[in-house]
Amino acid sequence: MLEHDIQITYRLADLQDRYIHTLDSDALEDWPTLFVDDCLYEVIPKENEDAGLPAPVMRYDNIRMLHDRVISLRHANIYQKPVYRHFLSGMRWLAGADGLYRMTTNYLVINTNQTGQSLVYQTGTYHDTVVVEEDGVPRFKSKRVIYDTSRVQTLLAVPI
Amino acid sequence: MLEHDIQITYRLADLQDRYIHTLDSDALEDWPTLFVDDCLYEVIPKENEDAGLPAPVMRYDNIRMLHDRVISLRHANIYQKPVYRHFLSGMRWLAGADGLYRMTTNYLVINTNQTGQSLVYQTGTYHDTVVVEEDGVPRFKSKRVIYDTSRVQTLLAVPI
Amino acid sequence: MLEHDIQITYRLADLQDRYIHTLDSDALEDWPTLFVDDCLYEVIPKENEDAGLPAPVMRYDNIRMLHDRVISLRHANIYQKPVYRHFLSGMRWLAGADGLYRMTTNYLVINTNQTGQSLVYQTGTYHDTVVVEEDGVPRFKSKRVIYDTSRVQTLLAVPI
Repeated sequence: MLEHDIQITYRLADLQDRYIHTLDSDALEDWPTLFVDDCLYEVIPKENEDAGLPAPVMRYDNIRMLHDRVISLRHANIYQKPVYRHFLSGMRWLAGADGLYRMTTNYLVINTNQTGQSLVYQTGTYHDTVVVEEDGVPRFKSKRVIYDTSRVQTLLAVPI
Repeated sequence: MLEHDIQITYRLADLQDRYIHTLDSDALEDWPTLFVDDCLYEVIPKENEDAGLPAPVMRYDNIRMLHDRVISLRHANIYQKPVYRHFLSGMRWLAGADGLYRMTTNYLVINTNQTGQSLVYQTGTYHDTVVVEEDGVPRFKSKRVIYDTSRVQTLLAVPI
Repeated sequence: MLEHDIQITYRLADLQDRYIHTLDSDALEDWPTLFVDDCLYEVIPKENEDAGLPAPVMRYDNIRMLHDRVISLRHANIYQKPVYRHFLSGMRWLAGADGLYRMTTNYLVINTNQTGQSLVYQTGTYHDTVVVEEDGVPRFKSKRVIYDTSRVQTLLAVPI
């Protein structure tokens, strides 16, 4: 039983680590490959979520929209790329009767700006559902990014 | 042997993750349930600990005091709840001849204030002893929070 | 296969955790013991690495140089020791045909200064190669610290 839980935890943590690796190593083209085709990705302020008014500031409801997002980011005129670095902690998961894993994870993003200074960019929680498809690889069915930090200027520039 | 160490590490990390989850998800009522009845929770400045003068700024030596703390926090007049987010790293443990696990873990707490800005609130180390009781569940026998950050205004508002 | 990956991941994460523990708990004398004799430790700005000009700001190419570094740090006149706290996330590894493990890990260092304030000191990635020697213990063959944060005053004071 414990053994089984360790295996699931390992595979879900591995998925999360691959996720932040695609973002932090500028391998954005790999980012959509961690989702199933019929997926949901949204970004929501915590105060809206808490108030039961989860109006997302960003919402993509299939994998093509994720690919489009990457393409438009690649074509944006950015003189110097910002550097983001993700840190995760406190992952919790539950297996549902529907075969989906539901999990929450604390995230912290540090941004290093053009003057070389590193500051806290954003904290929040990932609320994810994960499905293991026929190829045995776990992928995100949905990823809801619920952020604490409302004073963010360049919030929508890159995926979180 | 390696297998056994992986299992212990998994269970201790799971306890730490549940701990920060109760604090970050505002499930404060669950916080005392992670301790044994005859427990110790204290918060100590690192410079005092290093000097061998571990005068705690907060000290609760049984589970009822933890429950009381939660009740008083729930009755406090706080207009807008502050948001705290914990991040852990570098957990190390040793099994003692007395059946207790002694462990240390780095912690970082980010606070998002009322203007929506997220800043480093506190860093430090947890010095814990953990016991596995008859129900097989690991719980804290003691948790000593030794903090680096001495310039903290609202230190005692919530458990760390 | 999964079992084997879990075991390798556990041992590599354990090595990283011991690494940050030697630095954060002021056990600097143990820091070189995590490397093989014929090792490489270097610190490189990310922008240099990205530009293919990896001129390191610090470079030690055997274990004696690491020991010397610790000795000189112990003899430095520092009135009050700075406090550093490391946080790791997103570890990824690959096993090479040469028996070496190559891995990358996000790191964050928080510094607490003499006025007791805690701030982001540095973020970056560790690019490591790890070898398991005859005694079965994994050690660093090389550790390349590639840092994001270029506005760092006291960068070279302590190992990262």
